[in-house]
Amino acid sequence: MDELAFIDYLKQHLATNTLGHRIKTGIGDDMAVLDLAGRTVLFASDMLVEGVHFDLDRASPEQIGHKALAVCLSDCAAMAAKPLAVVVSFAKPKHVSTEVMQRIYDGLLATSKRFACPIVGGDSCSGGDRLTIDVAMLAEGDGIDPVLRGGARSGDTLYLTGALGGSVLGRHLQFEPRIEQARRLAELLPLHAMIDVSDGLSTDLWHLCNASRCGAVLSTEQLETIVSDDARRLAEHSGRTPLEHALNDGEDFELLAAIGLTPDALPELPADLSLLPIGCIVEEHRVTITDPTGHTHDLSPSGYKHF
Amino acid sequence: MDELAFIDYLKQHLATNTLGHRIKTGIGDDMAVLDLAGRTVLFASDMLVEGVHFDLDRASPEQIGHKALAVCLSDCAAMAAKPLAVVVSFAKPKHVSTEVMQRIYDGLLATSKRFACPIVGGDSCSGGDRLTIDVAMLAEGDGIDPVLRGGARSGDTLYLTGALGGSVLGRHLQFEPRIEQARRLAELLPLHAMIDVSDGLSTDLWHLCNASRCGAVLSTEQLETIVSDDARRLAEHSGRTPLEHALNDGEDFELLAAIGLTPDALPELPADLSLLPIGCIVEEHRVTITDPTGHTHDLSPSGYKHF
Repeated sequence: MDELAFIDYLKQHLATNTLGHRIKTGIGDDMAVLDLAGRTVLFASDMLVEGVHFDLDRASPEQIGHKALAVCLSDCAAMAAKPLAVVVSFAKPKHVSTEVMQRIYDGLLATSKRFACPIVGGDSCSGGDRLTIDVAMLAEGDGIDPVLRGGARSGDTLYLTGALGGSVLGRHLQFEPRIEQARRLAELLPLHAMIDVSDGLSTDLWHLCNASRCGAVLSTEQLETIVSDDARRLAEHSGRTPLEHALNDGEDFELLAAIGLTPDALPELPADLSLLPIGCIVEEHRVTITDPTGHTHDLSPSGYKHF
Repeated sequence: MDELAFIDYLKQHLATNTLGHRIKTGIGDDMAVLDLAGRTVLFASDMLVEGVHFDLDRASPEQIGHKALAVCLSDCAAMAAKPLAVVVSFAKPKHVSTEVMQRIYDGLLATSKRFACPIVGGDSCSGGDRLTIDVAMLAEGDGIDPVLRGGARSGDTLYLTGALGGSVLGRHLQFEPRIEQARRLAELLPLHAMIDVSDGLSTDLWHLCNASRCGAVLSTEQLETIVSDDARRLAEHSGRTPLEHALNDGEDFELLAAIGLTPDALPELPADLSLLPIGCIVEEHRVTITDPTGHTHDLSPSGYKHF
């Protein structure tokens, strides 16, 4: 069985397993959505592994703690949900001192306080060769219906909350989860579908299109506006173009939303809610990029593969 | 900073961090207890690391999957709570094939179905050197108040739901979480405090006494009845006595409860709810064992240390 077959196996078996009157959305979105007697509760987890998601010699312990919680807060942002509480588990190898662990918790706690999302429990053990941290989060709708990946419709405009690419230069350790923006946007605009850009735009756009059973057409002109300074800096030595970095790099943690308003029809938004249009949703299950001469080519998912 | 100091640091900082009107019980119990508009929701996580909690050459993949979920279900049993849903994260090293991962999920799913606790999400990545699995669980009171560690009072009798020791011979991979028993006992009897025996009786009894600010007196006669056959078998070659195994071995996952009824006063219980008395709760913050000649010696926590 190859990896894709295993992922298909998981999706099928877990999807069947999650059928139940209380589970509105199971496997396949940024968070699961449960209905507890009319109250919407969301649930998700993210695991960070040393050498995969961070390196101890390139990140401060406080940054690692921040990131462990922030990636989960970003899932919460992608649903326009409000965090309630987290549990944190870790496996501490011998080469990580308790001083370093304490500083990791300083980072976790600072972000936990800033986002009003207390750490209420967890697990710890000594062992393994790589520091591994898992954060599981409980969140709530609190008056806003969760925004799923699967609600995009033909004619929606695709927007990003910020520029992409090159987060590996440092942004992946200190990004701000877009919770506040997501909740305000959900109140102001018809958000039909949303996802956070963690695996890379090309991959996460495909996730959104697959869940919504639709496709997308992006324009090269608009894509030029989403290339971050980091993407340009990285491209100077990487042998790839800045646009390739913007399209395929992971861990930007901006939000990608399908909204039922074209850029012309958008109300005036405060500066901190500014949105970058990149294209639109179409019926055909295909993602293409159109350049100014009218040429079209397919965009395949080239971002982060989980395995 | 040594390890004890780090654990103290965590407890203090996280306890302060969890103050809030919605969090009834934070760090320090088997699960956190949250109050969502009058509805009691419980939250916990457990992380399993290859080489620490299981070995791939001594456990079947299905057993590993079962154990990953069952340790978390045992936390739920310790609160007399009812499981709602879990999210499962894993980091898969190269030496673990997707076939093995699939069989691990077969084990997870079988237990998930048996306990009506669906897997609704999670995270996965490729990397690290040891297979690591984290299960986070959401549970609910559903008509039964969570049984905390901190409610034991002087005069309570201490009971176990089963014999202890030697689970390393195999039981740690195939134990049954005592959820059904816990909930029925909570309905029938005045359960003042409860904990699952995961770190070893001597350690978990200290956890219960610390949380309840009390002590305990155990009797050697009664302790003889809680020595499992596995403990005796292990003692044949381990150089330790069967009782030492029963007192200090971890991963038995039986429940230890402080109940406001002496053995004489217990109502007749069905066979599957039978309880083994081992001693009683006293005011003095000290755990002692008394032998038939009246000699007393202190019992210190000698079970599993998390690090």
